[in-house]
Amino acid sequence: MAKSHALNNNLGVDFVTVYRFATGDKAKAEQRFEDLIQRLASVGLASEVRNGENHSLLVFVRVSSEQHMFGEVYRSRVKDWVHGARSAEPSCEVRQTLEQDPMSEAERFRIIYQLITNPQSEGGAGITPKKGDWENVESVFALHDHVYNKEWIKKWSTQWILTAQDLDEIRDRMGEKIAYYFAFTQAYFSFLLFPAGFGILAWAFLGYYSTIYAMICSLWCVIFTEYWKHQEFDLALRWGVRGVSAIEDKRHEFKPTKEVTDSQTGEKIGTFPPQERLQRQLLQIPFAIAAALALGSLIAMCFGIEVFISEVYDGPLKSVLVFLPTVILTTCTPLISGIMTTFATRLNDFENYETHTRYERALTAKIFVLNFITSYLPVMLTAFVYVPFGSIIVPYLDIFSLTVKPFAENEKQMTAPKHPSQFTINPARLRKQIIYFTVTAQVVGLAMEVIVPYLKRQGFIKIKQMQSARAKASGGITPSAGADDAPEEKEFLARVRGEAELDVYDVTTDLREMVVQYGYLTLFSVIWPLVPLSFLINNWVELRADAVKICVEMQRPTPWRADSIGPWLDALSFLTWFGSITMSALVYLFSNDGLGPDGSPASIKGWGLLLSIFFSEHLYLLTRWAASTAISEIDSPGRQKARRERYLTRQKLFQESLDQTHQLPTLSEKGEQLSRTDLEEEARQGSLNTRSPEEKFWARQQGWRTSAQVGRDFIARAVPDQKEAGREKKEL
Amino acid sequence: MAKSHALNNNLGVDFVTVYRFATGDKAKAEQRFEDLIQRLASVGLASEVRNGENHSLLVFVRVSSEQHMFGEVYRSRVKDWVHGARSAEPSCEVRQTLEQDPMSEAERFRIIYQLITNPQSEGGAGITPKKGDWENVESVFALHDHVYNKEWIKKWSTQWILTAQDLDEIRDRMGEKIAYYFAFTQAYFSFLLFPAGFGILAWAFLGYYSTIYAMICSLWCVIFTEYWKHQEFDLALRWGVRGVSAIEDKRHEFKPTKEVTDSQTGEKIGTFPPQERLQRQLLQIPFAIAAALALGSLIAMCFGIEVFISEVYDGPLKSVLVFLPTVILTTCTPLISGIMTTFATRLNDFENYETHTRYERALTAKIFVLNFITSYLPVMLTAFVYVPFGSIIVPYLDIFSLTVKPFAENEKQMTAPKHPSQFTINPARLRKQIIYFTVTAQVVGLAMEVIVPYLKRQGFIKIKQMQSARAKASGGITPSAGADDAPEEKEFLARVRGEAELDVYDVTTDLREMVVQYGYLTLFSVIWPLVPLSFLINNWVELRADAVKICVEMQRPTPWRADSIGPWLDALSFLTWFGSITMSALVYLFSNDGLGPDGSPASIKGWGLLLSIFFSEHLYLLTRWAASTAISEIDSPGRQKARRERYLTRQKLFQESLDQTHQLPTLSEKGEQLSRTDLEEEARQGSLNTRSPEEKFWARQQGWRTSAQVGRDFIARAVPDQKEAGREKKEL
Repeated sequence: MAKSHALNNNLGVDFVTVYRFATGDKAKAEQRFEDLIQRLASVGLASEVRNGENHSLLVFVRVSSEQHMFGEVYRSRVKDWVHGARSAEPSCEVRQTLEQDPMSEAERFRIIYQLITNPQSEGGAGITPKKGDWENVESVFALHDHVYNKEWIKKWSTQWILTAQDLDEIRDRMGEKIAYYFAFTQAYFSFLLFPAGFGILAWAFLGYYSTIYAMICSLWCVIFTEYWKHQEFDLALRWGVRGVSAIEDKRHEFKPTKEVTDSQTGEKIGTFPPQERLQRQLLQIPFAIAAALALGSLIAMCFGIEVFISEVYDGPLKSVLVFLPTVILTTCTPLISGIMTTFATRLNDFENYETHTRYERALTAKIFVLNFITSYLPVMLTAFVYVPFGSIIVPYLDIFSLTVKPFAENEKQMTAPKHPSQFTINPARLRKQIIYFTVTAQVVGLAMEVIVPYLKRQGFIKIKQMQSARAKASGGITPSAGADDAPEEKEFLARVRGEAELDVYDVTTDLREMVVQYGYLTLFSVIWPLVPLSFLINNWVELRADAVKICVEMQRPTPWRADSIGPWLDALSFLTWFGSITMSALVYLFSNDGLGPDGSPASIKGWGLLLSIFFSEHLYLLTRWAASTAISEIDSPGRQKARRERYLTRQKLFQESLDQTHQLPTLSEKGEQLSRTDLEEEARQGSLNTRSPEEKFWARQQGWRTSAQVGRDFIARAVPDQKEAGREKKEL
Repeated sequence: MAKSHALNNNLGVDFVTVYRFATGDKAKAEQRFEDLIQRLASVGLASEVRNGENHSLLVFVRVSSEQHMFGEVYRSRVKDWVHGARSAEPSCEVRQTLEQDPMSEAERFRIIYQLITNPQSEGGAGITPKKGDWENVESVFALHDHVYNKEWIKKWSTQWILTAQDLDEIRDRMGEKIAYYFAFTQAYFSFLLFPAGFGILAWAFLGYYSTIYAMICSLWCVIFTEYWKHQEFDLALRWGVRGVSAIEDKRHEFKPTKEVTDSQTGEKIGTFPPQERLQRQLLQIPFAIAAALALGSLIAMCFGIEVFISEVYDGPLKSVLVFLPTVILTTCTPLISGIMTTFATRLNDFENYETHTRYERALTAKIFVLNFITSYLPVMLTAFVYVPFGSIIVPYLDIFSLTVKPFAENEKQMTAPKHPSQFTINPARLRKQIIYFTVTAQVVGLAMEVIVPYLKRQGFIKIKQMQSARAKASGGITPSAGADDAPEEKEFLARVRGEAELDVYDVTTDLREMVVQYGYLTLFSVIWPLVPLSFLINNWVELRADAVKICVEMQRPTPWRADSIGPWLDALSFLTWFGSITMSALVYLFSNDGLGPDGSPASIKGWGLLLSIFFSEHLYLLTRWAASTAISEIDSPGRQKARRERYLTRQKLFQESLDQTHQLPTLSEKGEQLSRTDLEEEARQGSLNTRSPEEKFWARQQGWRTSAQVGRDFIARAVPDQKEAGREKKEL
């Protein structure tokens, strides 16, 4: 009972701040800590301090008064409104507004988190975890709501399809950024249903490398990408976050190199000249080349070794050596990719972006390039180098046999049936590779994501237990962190200490995983039409596993807002485009199991290949245009809602302003409203007194009745009656 | 003296309405006329009526009071602000606003024009010239400002380059839509300077079909397109029209098929289901095919005849027959294109767009397709059909010789040296064709634009003089229109009657002309590198000729707003893209004067051609991306201005809203602001009275000082002093 109580109640704690003091000297640590508490108090946050694990303190933070919270909500909503992310100005009677438009848990946590971390100049406490002055502040995180988490996982694991309400709930709890990930994965999952079904049919009846499958799959991918853009926009409207990405928060790390004085406000603004940034961005080119070379040559080398060992080599230890390339790849790829990622981040820092949005966009582009190389290059090497040019290249791999020769036990093994010169390509290799990447690797990835952190955590717990046992045995002076805990808080604090040790959830990694997976579908699925089926099953599990991961293995994520999946959308479009090239090339090259369209490799013509690529790519562009045009016509509840709101706001604004025009005449110089009769009278007077041609001209006809009469006279004279008019016409 | 006076003074007339009554019966005409005057008066417009030519009346209109005008200006500016086209709310003290942000002549005329033509429900007089009830109203136009016009033409004709101020002046007088045309043409003109210079060098040193020229020219076109997008945006900011295209005026012609009741406002809104529109839009496909077939077969036929006559045929009348295809083309193309344009307009009407913007966009796309076929198909036929396949196709043209045979005087002529079977292609033909399109046709077009309307007008005047002379001679009853004019108004009215006869200026035609011209540059200029030079000269004259045209041959155009050259921008991008394909294909096919890369036609390889296209197209896409990224970094005065304005507005709004938060606490339930001490006291009290775990938890440390002290104690205990800490670490 007591345990479930500790799990079910967060005791009103909004955030927990972990302060680790082992690194600094005592006096400084104490001073810094006092600063921390004071800063928190200065923005209206109450705090309670408890002891933490390993030289750390847990600072529990909550908003000291409802009223203060309301003020912050109002500030935040006004900022949204000023930047156009809200259609209507929030009423200053916050209590009333909150009844109409209640605050979600995500909004609350986001606002408090910003209150803690925003710089003091923007009204926050300016506490930046792990950075600058606040290096001692290890993390700032909210506590899990275990009751909700339990329900969430229970609900999702018993439900086939996630509904819009499920996503709304995620959004209310975890914020829009994470909700977008789930929404995207769910949309992708539903979209996979059709290609999975069609894939089974294609696999059963059309065989591999079917033109029909390739076309339908590509078309479907185009529709998906365009549909997602539409859907994403709709979600942004539904969640009221349209345009939040335009509310640009300056990065604290931005280093201005030039000071410009604003001519109007007189304010000094630090800027960074775009030319300079452009020069720095040019470094991306050598970076991309270096990454492609480093990763590419590793992959190509392993590929070469693998082909040699499995297809050419027949010497001793073959059964062991066969695993050599896999071992090299699995150890070296993460290593090189890790180095490259670090390097990409450095480069990105060096490019010195002003806002978070731009920084993230640039970083995502770099990481996508790295992922593109590690994920797709092996398949592309097999498809576009090994199969067409295998018979030319493989004999050169003979060089390996020279190095292996010394190990050969006798000459016979070296002159085994598969001598390089008699080498024939193995078309099944490509399919095996795809099955590896789309089934084995996915399952392994999923397991790594869920099981490894679990084992890691269990290991940590074990180590800690051993340490404390050892400390007890040796009679050491360090008491357990919970030694001083009040008995009624014991379990709660133990839970919080546990959560403090957890990792921070990064939604980008999960999103990247999905996009990379989508790449296999759009680039290579024609090789093995069961790819979408495998992904369909994988993603059903993935969605649930990610929920579990967030609930169990990660700290509660800080809810951030987003109005899109951001730069990954570009990656999605790029992959779809690139797919139109690879799919057509694969179909042309392999439509007869690697033997070219006519059954012999010789009949593969360069112009045929290029023509199919040219045709396919332009068909893609046309389809994309048509799909986006057609989809843009589709209305959606979010759009209707936004339109209605906009209309009402405009009506209101327009009416308010027009109400003011009625007061206008009182502002006139003459101080009176001129009636039409006054005007006429005035004009008549004017004509008597002055003689300017203009006044004379306008004084001729007084009032509209005179003008109308003059016009009637002219008409009457010109068209005396119907008969005369007829005669007149004849004369002309 | 008297004449110049009439020219220099518009007597305060804002607009002239021409009412033509010859078509209706007398009573109805009189009634309708009275309605017209009454309607004008009802929206505060004063009118004067004078006799016009040929059964028409001239209704002179002016705003009856300054005050009224101010109200209208305010309404219009509020509407802009509500739709986001103005950054700040206009002050209701209009007189003061107008001092800060004075009204241009264009704004004044636009507002008055809208006052006359807007439907009554929107506060206008609802007079729609030539439509519905107002068929008798022939035109509504403003009078030329001859003083300004004279100055304008004088200034431009003595000045090499138009400055930003010149464009601003056009904008102030003629409105943004026309100013955009001049700005675009001017930007295009300046942009041509470099390719013109480089073209001369290429012509002199690199020869025709130079790869270097093609690449540089394409690159330059990409930069120009991207630069123009940037520039266009900047102009929109400079002229304060950013977003006006989003202020969507409903088309009066829109026919809703479904009535939807708005769930919130209860208003009934007529809509047209997008699915139905999509179905109707699909008719564009047969339309495009029909257009391509009709125009294409005409062009192909004439092309065939021409090739046959000039290259194969050697019979009688050759010197005359050579002109036959030109005659057929010049008579039939405008005919078919006219029919097709009418058809396109009908189709566009049928597609039933709700707003003007969408209607125009769709129509432009259709007209662009027609122009694309008529302008570029002849050249493409020569380049991609005649030259590569000429030797295969031309012999079939022998069929013509059979039809011509009867006319041959003797057998000898038919067995002339150039017999079809010995036919060789004539590579110079392509160049001749390009020179025709880019020099001759441009000069002819310019002449047609300026001289033909002049002759037409002179002809009209002659006819009228003859008519009146005849009428006098026969003693007819129709007196001259000016017979009743007051002597001091005589010259002024004669001038107005002249202007009433003029054509209405349509800026789209001129814009289309420029875009089509740009097409020749980007698609084919590698054939003859002097193309940009020819265009440079032509456009210098064109800019001035258009100014003259507007001043002398057209009614003063009604100033409309725009924030872009609209759909023509898409056409520009498309042509640049397509250019990357044609240029590379031309270079590959003709780099050795039509004989292929190795000097013999046989060496032209399909894969080579496709590879160069593939390479070039992707290079284009990459360049476009790089150029747009780089250009988007460039700052501009307009952007700076907009940023500053936005910043100030936001500051103001934010401050205003925040000022309200200070009043917040008074809205609190407790009716008092809680100080920190109060809070602490309250918490202490709370802990005494209640016993919930949450309250107990938060009551432990009162105030930030206690928390800080507790933390210091923890730190002190964990790190007793530096030495002990060192020992402790060792033990661990």
